[in-house]
Amino acid sequence: MSRLDRSLIAGLPPFQGLAPDDMDRILGLARSLRVPKDQPIFEQEVQAHSFFLLLDGHVRVVKSTPGGQDVIVRYISAGELIGIAHALGLTAYPATAIAAVDCVVLAWAGSLWAEFAAKYPAFGSNTFRTVGNRLQDAHARVVEMATEQVEQRVANALLKLVRQTGKRTDEGLLIDFPISRQDIAEMTGTTLHTVSRLLVAWEEKGLVKSGRQKVTVVQPHRLLVVAEGRGKRD
Amino acid sequence: MSRLDRSLIAGLPPFQGLAPDDMDRILGLARSLRVPKDQPIFEQEVQAHSFFLLLDGHVRVVKSTPGGQDVIVRYISAGELIGIAHALGLTAYPATAIAAVDCVVLAWAGSLWAEFAAKYPAFGSNTFRTVGNRLQDAHARVVEMATEQVEQRVANALLKLVRQTGKRTDEGLLIDFPISRQDIAEMTGTTLHTVSRLLVAWEEKGLVKSGRQKVTVVQPHRLLVVAEGRGKRD
Repeated sequence: MSRLDRSLIAGLPPFQGLAPDDMDRILGLARSLRVPKDQPIFEQEVQAHSFFLLLDGHVRVVKSTPGGQDVIVRYISAGELIGIAHALGLTAYPATAIAAVDCVVLAWAGSLWAEFAAKYPAFGSNTFRTVGNRLQDAHARVVEMATEQVEQRVANALLKLVRQTGKRTDEGLLIDFPISRQDIAEMTGTTLHTVSRLLVAWEEKGLVKSGRQKVTVVQPHRLLVVAEGRGKRD
Repeated sequence: MSRLDRSLIAGLPPFQGLAPDDMDRILGLARSLRVPKDQPIFEQEVQAHSFFLLLDGHVRVVKSTPGGQDVIVRYISAGELIGIAHALGLTAYPATAIAAVDCVVLAWAGSLWAEFAAKYPAFGSNTFRTVGNRLQDAHARVVEMATEQVEQRVANALLKLVRQTGKRTDEGLLIDFPISRQDIAEMTGTTLHTVSRLLVAWEEKGLVKSGRQKVTVVQPHRLLVVAEGRGKRD
């Protein structure tokens, strides 16, 4: 097995402030693995055996209700930790992580979590920051769900994905991984039917362009007007 | 000024696993203060100067939207840390904390956060656990908002408050602090009108009893049937 090179992780948020030797030691304990599109990296309610770093790809984090409904909690981009149940004092994964495209991840045994946090304080505080961001993000979602119309929520979800992963193309800003209308419905707490209706209407107005598992935001500033609920006053 | 006694915090979750001497050192750096009902302990978007432990009382944590709508993110009970912006890598408070009753809090300078977490690893990992619980809680709210009918959400909110603060009385389980119908609306993303309509209907069926800023759950098992969305199949 060839060794993992430090350049894989140097500069990524979880490892900022760590000494090169510490990064080598952390890498020396990692396993790298490829996860094909649509396969789970870990599953909700299963004993948390490992935590992961997404090296390449995009992952959707899904929570399932006892009634069998799925809600997409967030999308994760390359460079972020996932499955950090141990950092949160949990013994099982609180959600399922599914590869949205072919992914490459590094995995560490869950038992190493406490050791890393104690030995490498920067790693601990970087993770705190990540968890803090996710908590903020979750609260923002709660507030959106409580106060915004579905049209605003869908517009906000698209803008967020564009900010997180947008790739400039001739047509506008492309969300850089396959995303279905059902995925957008599961992000925003609405139905496939409503998402389809909104995308068709926005496409007619020239705000977005969408195809099979593909969304391009053509006019982000006009979509922002919708997201802020200002559309009605225009 | 009389010294704060260690018995104030020993046994509380944030201080579990700390040596008595460490607790004394932490207490030696705290200021105690009384916050009257309906006054803020800290306010959203203000520079985070301190973090706090709620010693006595109940606090509601509120996020305001740019449009001026309020959403109650959670209620905090005695024994929990609040305002831990520093632990999350934030410089400003992400929400406003308001005393739901007269409260007693301990306050520490925000700059002590990193020092405590480094010197007292148990304090750091206890906080990680708290943040983890809050993240789980926020995700559960997102899932609720996305998948549940408003009736289920209001029933769930009441059951959660009863689990958190319920006091057994002759009539049932009383939510042990003043809570208005508007508060319940701001917890569940609905209107005052809808909360009133539901409470009246449930009161007629004998599930709850409510008065001015007072809610008692009379038949928790029947309210649970509503919360789980099983009511319609009965």
